[in-house]
Amino acid sequence: MNAKQTGFSEDKFLGGQLVLTQPVNGYRAGVDPVFLAASIAANPGDTVLDLGCGAGAAALCLGTRVDGLHLVGVERQPEYVELAQMNAKNNGIAFDVHEGDLARMPGDVRDMSFDHVIMNPPYYLRDRGTASPDAMREGALGEDVPLATWLDQATRRLKPRGYVTMIQKAERLPEIMAGIDGRLGSILVQPLCPRIGRESALIIVRARKGGRAAFRLAAPLILHDGPQHVGDVEHYTPEVSAILRDGHPFPIG
Amino acid sequence: MNAKQTGFSEDKFLGGQLVLTQPVNGYRAGVDPVFLAASIAANPGDTVLDLGCGAGAAALCLGTRVDGLHLVGVERQPEYVELAQMNAKNNGIAFDVHEGDLARMPGDVRDMSFDHVIMNPPYYLRDRGTASPDAMREGALGEDVPLATWLDQATRRLKPRGYVTMIQKAERLPEIMAGIDGRLGSILVQPLCPRIGRESALIIVRARKGGRAAFRLAAPLILHDGPQHVGDVEHYTPEVSAILRDGHPFPIG
Repeated sequence: MNAKQTGFSEDKFLGGQLVLTQPVNGYRAGVDPVFLAASIAANPGDTVLDLGCGAGAAALCLGTRVDGLHLVGVERQPEYVELAQMNAKNNGIAFDVHEGDLARMPGDVRDMSFDHVIMNPPYYLRDRGTASPDAMREGALGEDVPLATWLDQATRRLKPRGYVTMIQKAERLPEIMAGIDGRLGSILVQPLCPRIGRESALIIVRARKGGRAAFRLAAPLILHDGPQHVGDVEHYTPEVSAILRDGHPFPIG
Repeated sequence: MNAKQTGFSEDKFLGGQLVLTQPVNGYRAGVDPVFLAASIAANPGDTVLDLGCGAGAAALCLGTRVDGLHLVGVERQPEYVELAQMNAKNNGIAFDVHEGDLARMPGDVRDMSFDHVIMNPPYYLRDRGTASPDAMREGALGEDVPLATWLDQATRRLKPRGYVTMIQKAERLPEIMAGIDGRLGSILVQPLCPRIGRESALIIVRARKGGRAAFRLAAPLILHDGPQHVGDVEHYTPEVSAILRDGHPFPIG
């Protein structure tokens, strides 16, 4: 594809191990789905569902690191379903992407159960701030489904002892905790902080179906070295650079 | 008092600015109420309620740092009520301690409202592990009241825009979040980690009556320097030493 002609760009992930076609103006995956994928302790043969997979960044990052997964995606917007399918093919990763959403889960997906459900739900509440003028971007960023609904659907799709893992803004932890019901346990919250000594901006939350272990609050992952952002260059910490550039896993406990 | 004769010891807090008489074998305040008190941004003239005040460590640490507070305590065990009253007198701090508990809040306290409610509820669930053979210790450490009840009573006693602040084991964050209802908001979670890179063992949770600000997850306070405990000596970080030894405040955001 030619970015200028089509409005799409080709973007490198994991130091170029993965190349994703994304809309120039719509929702574009950044580092968040890369962290999400890196945090998933999946093994060859595992079944993994990416709920709201967009152009496939999280699932395809995971498929780049771990061979032999059965990767399944559900995405509401048909344009992103096509992109995810194309991205999977172009990168040689098997990824079954279905059009559907949390209220109309595709029958093929409802018939399956998964070792892992991963998701990166929209960060912004639609009734806060201005809606994006770009329909594709708005559909991906603008929240119109409560996080409790995401968690409920994820839990339904999990095998017993399976894990649901979400990356989300830290400020929405109360909604996430309220949405985790008695079917899930062994909750782990992994904070991600922009710099040492700063508040967490993002969290990865993992819970296990039927888990009974105590809640755990992990040490934050520090994203950037140094006290402040210098110029336009991101100085990632070595641990973060290994995750983002070299495709290392991010064991969250 | 003579420790050997009475079973009580005299313990220095805040580098000796505060001396508390405590039972040798019962519940003994450690560093946790000191951190709790340091985190309270109280101003002279403020009313402060210490729910379950024990021998008075949290309230009296706060009264040591901030002059002119109206400090009130509620404590279930009469032996600790006496100790708290004696400790207040011996340290020259005004502290009205009432015998009562969450189910029978003293009328004098019910008639008041507070700028701050502080509490350090028992850490252990009574039905987990073995009950302490010491009744005074068991009464302080063993949980038989849900954290939601502590939070409900604290919220009732708060002025509009007042703050409730609790220190508790990190693993009980889900119960705390579930116990914070719509009357409270602007929740801040301050983790306390034994060492850098380790999980949080303790959390301070603060919420504001009528608060509407977003939830915040602060950077952890790191308690000890170095990768591990060396011998019997605690190597506190400079920030922690300033709080524990010099009585500095611990601003949590």
